[in-house]
Amino acid sequence: MLVVQKYGGTSVADLEKISNVAKRVIEYRENDNDVIVVVSAMAGETDKLLNLAHSISKTPDEREIDVLISTGEQITSALLAITLKNMFCDAISILGHQAKIITDSSHTSARISRIEKNHIMSEISKGKVVVVPGFQGVDEKGNITTLGRGGSDTSAVALAAALNADLCEIYTDVDGVYTADPNVCDRARRLDRISYEEMLEMASLGAKVLQIRSVEFAMRYNVPILVKSSFTDGEGTLVCKEVSDMEKMEVTGVTHNKNEVKITISKVPDMPGIASKIFTALSDAGVIVDVIVQNVSRDNFTDITFTVAKTDGRKAYKLMEDVAKEIGVEEVALDEDIAKVSIIGLGMRSHAGVASKMFSVLAKEGINIEAITTSEIKISCVVEGKYGELAVRALHKAFGLDSELVGEGA
Amino acid sequence: MLVVQKYGGTSVADLEKISNVAKRVIEYRENDNDVIVVVSAMAGETDKLLNLAHSISKTPDEREIDVLISTGEQITSALLAITLKNMFCDAISILGHQAKIITDSSHTSARISRIEKNHIMSEISKGKVVVVPGFQGVDEKGNITTLGRGGSDTSAVALAAALNADLCEIYTDVDGVYTADPNVCDRARRLDRISYEEMLEMASLGAKVLQIRSVEFAMRYNVPILVKSSFTDGEGTLVCKEVSDMEKMEVTGVTHNKNEVKITISKVPDMPGIASKIFTALSDAGVIVDVIVQNVSRDNFTDITFTVAKTDGRKAYKLMEDVAKEIGVEEVALDEDIAKVSIIGLGMRSHAGVASKMFSVLAKEGINIEAITTSEIKISCVVEGKYGELAVRALHKAFGLDSELVGEGA
Repeated sequence: MLVVQKYGGTSVADLEKISNVAKRVIEYRENDNDVIVVVSAMAGETDKLLNLAHSISKTPDEREIDVLISTGEQITSALLAITLKNMFCDAISILGHQAKIITDSSHTSARISRIEKNHIMSEISKGKVVVVPGFQGVDEKGNITTLGRGGSDTSAVALAAALNADLCEIYTDVDGVYTADPNVCDRARRLDRISYEEMLEMASLGAKVLQIRSVEFAMRYNVPILVKSSFTDGEGTLVCKEVSDMEKMEVTGVTHNKNEVKITISKVPDMPGIASKIFTALSDAGVIVDVIVQNVSRDNFTDITFTVAKTDGRKAYKLMEDVAKEIGVEEVALDEDIAKVSIIGLGMRSHAGVASKMFSVLAKEGINIEAITTSEIKISCVVEGKYGELAVRALHKAFGLDSELVGEGA
Repeated sequence: MLVVQKYGGTSVADLEKISNVAKRVIEYRENDNDVIVVVSAMAGETDKLLNLAHSISKTPDEREIDVLISTGEQITSALLAITLKNMFCDAISILGHQAKIITDSSHTSARISRIEKNHIMSEISKGKVVVVPGFQGVDEKGNITTLGRGGSDTSAVALAAALNADLCEIYTDVDGVYTADPNVCDRARRLDRISYEEMLEMASLGAKVLQIRSVEFAMRYNVPILVKSSFTDGEGTLVCKEVSDMEKMEVTGVTHNKNEVKITISKVPDMPGIASKIFTALSDAGVIVDVIVQNVSRDNFTDITFTVAKTDGRKAYKLMEDVAKEIGVEEVALDEDIAKVSIIGLGMRSHAGVASKMFSVLAKEGINIEAITTSEIKISCVVEGKYGELAVRALHKAFGLDSELVGEGA
């Protein structure tokens, strides 16, 4: 089997942890697997380098930032290769420019366009473990690029895709993907499997585990990802294509997000062009809108509600006050105390009544729903902030996700 | 004028020092010079990385060591480029593999075979300052290599040679090359000029200022080197071809070296093959012999004396005990308390009596000479260790090198 293993910054934080990684790699080798290891910078290193650059300039040159911060992964790669060889496991580091991980030229947030597989595969065919620094590539002209925060996950998945690997393992500091945030819901369970689509919808959980871009990449090239802890020996969670024997649940996970605010514009004249005016103003200002709800018109007036990231809240509110004046509307309300609670599951497509069940569960807890939005495999409700955690626990139980023993998954 | 400037580790030790380097570079640019800057790793960084590697393994893989330690210079290059751009001076870093500084594959002590000038010169022609990390290159296969300790000097000279630069400036923490070590001889003077040949012979002084390999390189390609301090504004010392208007002194400098030991094998049968036996044993064991003295034979017996580096002393002594047994000789003596005092000067070639003057100066001070060796432009005497500094001062004065004001050069 050809496996790509990726180890994050906390998994390679010091020489002892690097030595543990080496042992894990060697165990894999001994089972006749070929292994490509993708490593992050040692925890804290990238920030240290960025701080240096930012203490020189508020807007340091981005090409040079990439030259600077790509050294973090290079150092880890060399140290892991040295450790492996010291343990009598033949290994070689191959850097981004050597492996020809070709990206576009968007320094600090480059996107991989292709990877030439020959160099890596010729070392693999010599029986070596190949260590590749994550996060880095080169553009067509040979300039060093980096992929943005969490880019090492994307490096690993892209390598797995380019090299036709059988599996991409992502080692991190949690032991898999959970049905809910264990800090909020102590009966949250680790999922054995989850589909790419569900993983993407579970962004607010998933972002802590996997970089979203890497999941998109994996979905496009159908690379199975196994998320595991590098500190324990659990089974992890397999992120893969939907398969028929997947757990037959209506709902796979419950998430909540307290990083949004809600803006409501009341009594908007219900005529063409008004909604466009509102959302053009927001998009021109670079504000990304999440949930949008417009109720049916009453007496030719309607209310428009939307949510944006907390950091954009004040800016969006000011913009809306201007728009309101322009269209002769008086009332714009900003609510900074909301939670967005979502249930996600491929099962929704075939199970009727999931939405109504969600609403009645919340009603039973006395939680008022302030806005609703749905996608094919996700339903989100905006509720008062203080009810966020309660809503998660209630929905988690109602949809049969609770673990049997209290605290098992915590 | 096209100038290569090299800044050592102490000159780029922190962001403030890097900012000073940037100011110096910009001053140069403003006088219509094109500048290529070669930088070392920030002081201490290379050792820090090497310590990491050596705490993993006593014999860390050398290819990976190069991947590891080449990051030091890469970091400085990026930080200097960011600093220059922040000061509105267009700049770009070009790494060893990008500049195509091609070396052989002797990891950790590679030798430069060629440099492709196009990449660097095309950026220069756009008006940019090009920042190149010293110490690093790539072999023909694209593996990262490093040039060994002090290799950044060699990088700078090699770049100056390849790009036909008018001058190679080496910025360091001393303000030039002195007639003697100012710590030993307080009347030592800074030399305005010194020839490549003299600089090479003054290795024990020169090594503190310039890596010897860089001087050999400069001599071969006739690259003038200006050694200057990055902390003061002195004239520095120009290392260049011998020219007719060079200071007409018999002696250019006086050096001493206390890092050698002397081994004497007495009463060696004077017959063919004995010396060969001795020195083959040493060379097979990788011991480098410096001074060798064999006296004329008396009664078919002779004495053989040689010096080796202090670190090889015990090893060489043991080897000689074995050889002595084999050839039936009883007496092998190890003297660990010696100093080698040398006078160096192109002038020796045309001035008669330099050697006899040296011997009489030492005699007048009551210093016994234990061994003598000469080259075309250098005479070395081995003396008792405690007389080393005294010998330097006496010779410095006798050959007219003393500065007029006591302490001027100190």
